Amino acid sequence: MQKENEKIAKTHMDYAYELDLVIKPDSRVPLFDREYAAFSGAGVPLFSLGGGYYRYALIDILARFHAKRGYFIAETPIIASSYLYQVSGHIEFFRQNMFLFKIEDHDFAIKPMNCPYHILVFLSHLARFRQKVALPFKIFEAGRVHRYEPSGSLYGLLRVRAFTQDDAHIITPEEKAVESLVSVFEEMKLLMEKLFLMKLDPESITLRLSLSDKEKIGTEFMGTRREWETAEAALEEAAKTLKDKYGFNYFKEEGEAAFYGPKIDVIMRVEESGIEKEWQLGTAQFDFNLPRRFKVYGAVREIYGEETNIFIIHRALMGSLERFLSVYLDYTKGRMPFPLSPVQFAVVAIKIGDPEIDEKIAGLVKRIHKGLLAEGYRTGIVETTKTSLSGDVRRIESTIKPAVTIYVGAREVKEGFVTVRPYIHEKKRRISQKVNIGDNPHLDVINAIKSLEDGVLELAGYSPRIPGDVSHLL
Amino acid sequence: MQKENEKIAKTHMDYAYELDLVIKPDSRVPLFDREYAAFSGAGVPLFSLGGGYYRYALIDILARFHAKRGYFIAETPIIASSYLYQVSGHIEFFRQNMFLFKIEDHDFAIKPMNCPYHILVFLSHLARFRQKVALPFKIFEAGRVHRYEPSGSLYGLLRVRAFTQDDAHIITPEEKAVESLVSVFEEMKLLMEKLFLMKLDPESITLRLSLSDKEKIGTEFMGTRREWETAEAALEEAAKTLKDKYGFNYFKEEGEAAFYGPKIDVIMRVEESGIEKEWQLGTAQFDFNLPRRFKVYGAVREIYGEETNIFIIHRALMGSLERFLSVYLDYTKGRMPFPLSPVQFAVVAIKIGDPEIDEKIAGLVKRIHKGLLAEGYRTGIVETTKTSLSGDVRRIESTIKPAVTIYVGAREVKEGFVTVRPYIHEKKRRISQKVNIGDNPHLDVINAIKSLEDGVLELAGYSPRIPGDVSHLL
Repeated sequence: MQKENEKIAKTHMDYAYELDLVIKPDSRVPLFDREYAAFSGAGVPLFSLGGGYYRYALIDILARFHAKRGYFIAETPIIASSYLYQVSGHIEFFRQNMFLFKIEDHDFAIKPMNCPYHILVFLSHLARFRQKVALPFKIFEAGRVHRYEPSGSLYGLLRVRAFTQDDAHIITPEEKAVESLVSVFEEMKLLMEKLFLMKLDPESITLRLSLSDKEKIGTEFMGTRREWETAEAALEEAAKTLKDKYGFNYFKEEGEAAFYGPKIDVIMRVEESGIEKEWQLGTAQFDFNLPRRFKVYGAVREIYGEETNIFIIHRALMGSLERFLSVYLDYTKGRMPFPLSPVQFAVVAIKIGDPEIDEKIAGLVKRIHKGLLAEGYRTGIVETTKTSLSGDVRRIESTIKPAVTIYVGAREVKEGFVTVRPYIHEKKRRISQKVNIGDNPHLDVINAIKSLEDGVLELAGYSPRIPGDVSHLL
Repeated sequence: MQKENEKIAKTHMDYAYELDLVIKPDSRVPLFDREYAAFSGAGVPLFSLGGGYYRYALIDILARFHAKRGYFIAETPIIASSYLYQVSGHIEFFRQNMFLFKIEDHDFAIKPMNCPYHILVFLSHLARFRQKVALPFKIFEAGRVHRYEPSGSLYGLLRVRAFTQDDAHIITPEEKAVESLVSVFEEMKLLMEKLFLMKLDPESITLRLSLSDKEKIGTEFMGTRREWETAEAALEEAAKTLKDKYGFNYFKEEGEAAFYGPKIDVIMRVEESGIEKEWQLGTAQFDFNLPRRFKVYGAVREIYGEETNIFIIHRALMGSLERFLSVYLDYTKGRMPFPLSPVQFAVVAIKIGDPEIDEKIAGLVKRIHKGLLAEGYRTGIVETTKTSLSGDVRRIESTIKPAVTIYVGAREVKEGFVTVRPYIHEKKRRISQKVNIGDNPHLDVINAIKSLEDGVLELAGYSPRIPGDVSHLL
């Protein structure tokens, strides 16, 4: 039977390979968990199963979080007249990474970057609502972008051709640039600490400022000396504020700015089996190019007065959601925080071979499972025996890694409790709780682990509830 | 000043037109509200502002609603090896509507339909989890698809080149087909009644069954006679059940099925200024073609036994979210239900010219506005006077149409109440409530209108909270 099933599996996988469609896990990324995504066409990840839940929950949290922080929430197109990218300069400088095609006689492009759209939205606001548009103007999008990468350089979820950015643009008056930069950093800190349960401390975090070479302003670095100086002063002022407030060190790299503006990156050092790696988290990047190309400076001055100077800042907290997922799963050894976990609860029935008691165990497990499902959680049932227990636990701990495991055995049904084992990211291990149960055992379980949702409640005002019976993943 | 601003507006709009990027409202669609979307490139809608909130809130509700009903939630790629669509047959029969391009030497396509991906996910599940995959297998996606339409046939949001489907596929054993079809209808009914506050009654709703011409099975209609007969019997049985349960009439059109399977459509008659229009709501469509092309029948039988017969059913409750938005705004004259409304609250300060009282009015308005914002709502402030009031009300009622209007004038601050006017879809007008206020006036307001969220709470288990200060829209 096992063999026959393998034959079937092989048939379908072969079939997929033949098609170059390959719904398969990518084994080149360490600890990358195939419960999240697979690939369909080189470099094009497909999110299904766990990945689907992760994506919808994450994007929902990101949208609310940004909305709460005063960002407008947009959804911009995937395809556009390539003229847009001619105006933005992408066709000239980024063409080799763009997917282009024709509709009737018009050149179209698949969006490689969200920025031109966000700027158009701002300009359109300005034209319609004039002074009613408050500055800083902040706009957020979970933006799906596509870029060409040579097939040889594709690497798991780390380098793909289709990805989603937690992309935002801030159009800020010069005098509010420092405040805006500091607030970006604080948003990143909140997201990493409250949602992803990472600790950002002065030992692990450094800020890198990529600045111009002053000699080359006007040649290699476009824009005016005043722009560069004001922007770089704002970056340094922001870095100092963050050092004072949180103790984070920063360093400057002169000449390392992009040709269109200086930037600040947040670098996290992580140690992995004795090897120290650098993980780039958030970034905030000035852009002196796009506002010129889209005539934003003039538009703002006509509304707010000739003396108004603004900056456009690109920023991302996670960068590519795909890349982040990959690095994060590596960092946590495949452990997702509870609100994003494909399997939030595994309810384990430990049978003993006595039909009467086993029936009670099965009944309680089912009640808890169904109750959790009805409350909006993703949960699955594992049936095991005392002798198979350790093997089954090892299996689910090495594959899907449920956020919370609930054990129900003979002692539990007899004494009226369940054993609840949530994984605690801060401790990097599970803890064990004996939870006495009443008429609604699932509510007792939820109550016991409710602190797992504290961070996301603080961040987004609610915890996502996209339920699913995910027993098949266990 | 006004003139100067017009000049600026014109400059930017001209600029946009020149670029064929056109961030502009589309005036060809009656009552289509430019607060929701604009176009960037012919047929490519851009959601910003109100449209962004609407999209994120709606997709979130749809995901939860479907997850609660047992659907898996997926996100599949936008681009794919065109080989996928060769297998599915789209390249052969649908090529003229597809956007194709090359990556290195591979042909790629922008996804015109989600079905092939959903089938691949199912096959991949089956290969990995075998009998653990429960049937019916249901998979949902808010899937962004792109199809070529000649520029001459583009029409507002009714016919576009880029749109999002509330797309799901149900892979059901033959004997559960009726049940699956009935449940699709019930999902549509729930969504329309609980979220969109439409009344589906036997007077307005008819079901249309598009069936084969029995003579032409095997020639014009592909698949076996047994497939057609079983599927059509299931459709009729489902229609009968719905007639018994809800009183909806149905009619059959023989020979009107697609070549690959029969279907059922839900038709709603709406009367608009004396003209009766037909609005097609949900659809459920059998497909005998894709399971053959993807060898699904064989794969299922190898796992579940040779006697297992399954059907693949495509289904959508809204169809294209863009088209639905357009028709719905027409139907409701621009009124969105509270949970999806870009402006949920307009807080109107009616000043009287007495500085002391006006300050109190402004203070109370601000407190309510900020309180609502903090609770996760989209709210804006309107400042007016007794004499300008009717003009300002007319303006916002004819443009953005807030879901709830709150009035604060001299009497209100003196006597400690506010006037709350929610729009009630069932009554097609606003009602007026005097709401006494205490220490947290925004909570008194929320309490007064909380029934506006009942439907969505029932549907999705929560009401979306994507806050925004949208004063500029008012």
